Amino acid sequence: MSSKSVSSLYFPEEPKEPVVVDSHAKSKEIADRLGKVFDNRGVYFVADYEKSVGNYIADVDGNVYLDVYAQIASIPLGYNNPALIETAKSDKMIRAIVDRPAIGNFPGKDTDEIVSEILKVAPKGQDKVWSGLSGADANELAFKAAFFYYQAKKRGYTTQFSEEEMKSVMQNEAPGSPELAILSFERGFHGRLFASGSTTCSKPIHKLDMPSFKWPKAQFPSYKYPLDKYAEENKKEDERCLKIVDDIIQNNKIPVAAVLVEPIQSEGGDNHASAEFFQGLRDITLKHGSLLIMDEVQTGVGATGVMWAHERFNLQPPPDLVTFSKKFQSAGYFFHDPEIIPNFAYRQFNTWCGDPARMILAGAIGQEILKHDLVKRAAEVGDYLFKKLEQLQEKYPKYIKDLRGKDRATFIAWSLESGEARNKFLSDMKTVGVNIGGCAEDSVRLRPTLVFEEQHADILVSAIDKLLGSY
Amino acid sequence: MSSKSVSSLYFPEEPKEPVVVDSHAKSKEIADRLGKVFDNRGVYFVADYEKSVGNYIADVDGNVYLDVYAQIASIPLGYNNPALIETAKSDKMIRAIVDRPAIGNFPGKDTDEIVSEILKVAPKGQDKVWSGLSGADANELAFKAAFFYYQAKKRGYTTQFSEEEMKSVMQNEAPGSPELAILSFERGFHGRLFASGSTTCSKPIHKLDMPSFKWPKAQFPSYKYPLDKYAEENKKEDERCLKIVDDIIQNNKIPVAAVLVEPIQSEGGDNHASAEFFQGLRDITLKHGSLLIMDEVQTGVGATGVMWAHERFNLQPPPDLVTFSKKFQSAGYFFHDPEIIPNFAYRQFNTWCGDPARMILAGAIGQEILKHDLVKRAAEVGDYLFKKLEQLQEKYPKYIKDLRGKDRATFIAWSLESGEARNKFLSDMKTVGVNIGGCAEDSVRLRPTLVFEEQHADILVSAIDKLLGSY
Repeated sequence: MSSKSVSSLYFPEEPKEPVVVDSHAKSKEIADRLGKVFDNRGVYFVADYEKSVGNYIADVDGNVYLDVYAQIASIPLGYNNPALIETAKSDKMIRAIVDRPAIGNFPGKDTDEIVSEILKVAPKGQDKVWSGLSGADANELAFKAAFFYYQAKKRGYTTQFSEEEMKSVMQNEAPGSPELAILSFERGFHGRLFASGSTTCSKPIHKLDMPSFKWPKAQFPSYKYPLDKYAEENKKEDERCLKIVDDIIQNNKIPVAAVLVEPIQSEGGDNHASAEFFQGLRDITLKHGSLLIMDEVQTGVGATGVMWAHERFNLQPPPDLVTFSKKFQSAGYFFHDPEIIPNFAYRQFNTWCGDPARMILAGAIGQEILKHDLVKRAAEVGDYLFKKLEQLQEKYPKYIKDLRGKDRATFIAWSLESGEARNKFLSDMKTVGVNIGGCAEDSVRLRPTLVFEEQHADILVSAIDKLLGSY
Repeated sequence: MSSKSVSSLYFPEEPKEPVVVDSHAKSKEIADRLGKVFDNRGVYFVADYEKSVGNYIADVDGNVYLDVYAQIASIPLGYNNPALIETAKSDKMIRAIVDRPAIGNFPGKDTDEIVSEILKVAPKGQDKVWSGLSGADANELAFKAAFFYYQAKKRGYTTQFSEEEMKSVMQNEAPGSPELAILSFERGFHGRLFASGSTTCSKPIHKLDMPSFKWPKAQFPSYKYPLDKYAEENKKEDERCLKIVDDIIQNNKIPVAAVLVEPIQSEGGDNHASAEFFQGLRDITLKHGSLLIMDEVQTGVGATGVMWAHERFNLQPPPDLVTFSKKFQSAGYFFHDPEIIPNFAYRQFNTWCGDPARMILAGAIGQEILKHDLVKRAAEVGDYLFKKLEQLQEKYPKYIKDLRGKDRATFIAWSLESGEARNKFLSDMKTVGVNIGGCAEDSVRLRPTLVFEEQHADILVSAIDKLLGSY
């Protein structure tokens, strides 16, 4: 381990194990104060980021948890990573903070370089990028690109807009504001703004009371496990779901400009599907002239043992747009077809067009990952962890069901028998020193950093064992 | 002047005048290179932020422009402001960059303080805040709050959702996903995502080919100038427009959950309306149980000679939500009614819930403004500048028409005879050393920083004089 331990290289002072003190009083006090000015009802605990190191998050009461949730799957290289601290202290970063440019109008002399650093870790087949601010924003910017592309194809790429289009759009009416749809999947999650919310379909609470676009949903495959035992059934499940997609695009009364899908449905329960399913989606979108948008907001940046989860599917041709955020700490979409650049200036545009401070950080994250081969390491650690979890599954079949994420690095999940049991498990894990999160109604998801290693996996496994042994 | 000059305090090295070199070759070269990976068609020039100081922006060819556009109205205190550089270098900022928290779940021990700093410059009557990432995001988050509020009132604030709501929302159907509208105004601008885009109504290019919500638009007053001469006509114009608002809320087939308005329509042409008009809006929204959302994305943070432009209207009661971004370098909405906090957790929620790095900067911007009384200074400088522009208007009536923004600090605009003439003027101003922007189809808008002072106003005025004299 020692020669491979990037975490000990980054974090010589990383704790060797969690610290559990039996108090949450300060956390409660500060959260209550925060509640007077800010919604505090989702607060797990108040963190002390100054004292958090590597894979360990400290709270204000002195608890130090092994963190396998990592700010909802978004801390890439551990807390207070020294390489990223260097980046944060650089003159370039300081300027990006205090002189935030409108980069669409006034890029800096280093904007080209900042963008190019990001592109060094772009998905295979993608060589251009557009920048945004969050996962929801990235997806909605991708929808805009898809709608612009779809209509530009229809009217001829460089053709001017008609007078009728120019006039009707100001009334929010067709033809200037056409009826067009994004097709997404049941159990998918793509954000919580209005268009992204219209494609999200994992939990009611994400979108209750929000007006929505009447966009269709297909079904995402529901496999039987273990996969090798049910190969035939699961193949049929792929075909069933692909037929639904084909039928919807063919028959939906609103034209489907793009199909939006996660390579692994994450918030919705870590639902996996085969490379054949995804190639099927690619084929169907090509057949109908719809674009394929791969939402890698949660799966991207090494988390699944490849840089981008969909690269495993080796899609031919690659997806048209790939959205990112979370672990990259910067958001946007990758693409390759020049015609996805809107046919006129100022269409895909806004004041800031992203945030160079966050883009600089994304570039540094990418370089650190390459330098330390962290994607490969995540895959190795994931294999190590998965085997141990399989043993726990045999020992505690009631609490570890449908273990998912084999060969997907540490992107691992499992289900419990009910939402109640799952919630109790998540909460109880703090008593054995682990901060851990859920997905769907009844599942647990592991989303550690890319510097989560065998020694951390051991601690996690023995904490789970200890807790489940006490049930 | 000397005792009042905050700019010379901040920027002892600020240039005394613009530098115009007759070359744009490097800018073109770098912009072309950027174009291979990023949309570059909106690029004015490639800036050298390292060499930009205070009110002056340098480009890579050695041109140094007096900047009265300030990154589309968003640089608050000048380029490379030393106080903000200090903030950017602070440990707190560095942690916010490298340990970006999901503040809804895991706030830091300083989150409460960061939020409280922002609230020190909140609009009168507002004492809570929710944080987002951009102007469009801020507005859409405010729409969500308004829809949640509207429906919660209807069903009883703490009442659970019905099974029918929980089920239908997953199909994007009512009652879970109800038909509700935001009423906005013709010529208004509120962002370019899908829901914000549905409320934006200033130029077709902002929203062509985007599906939209069929939300209604009212008319914003169109005054005759000078205002005192046309007092009677303008009062009737207010009444005419208010009646339209009242009629729409009363009769629109989709219930209007909120009215959204800018205190001065900015992107749409710097269109002003009276305090009576805005109080009228407030009264109408109260009468119908709709919320009033004041979009201060461009007008906020001192730009108009008060901290928040709508504070001049002294509305009783204050608006329900006030959105911000741009000059504050952080986005979100202020509010005061606790019932605007959604009735259950995880409704107004997302991974990051804003960006503490940008929130820390916003707090520092607020404190600098208070410390140096920059809002008052902006008002003084604006009065000084406006008088000089009035003189220019007399001299060049063809090029300076409908001068707007008297008593609104440097938030000043005027029209030219055509879009072509305006575009030529904006472009030609670079030849006399000024970077300046437009609004609407035919107008020029001044959006300098809050450290734009009399000496800068003199340079601007003589540059305009020189250019128009040459026409």
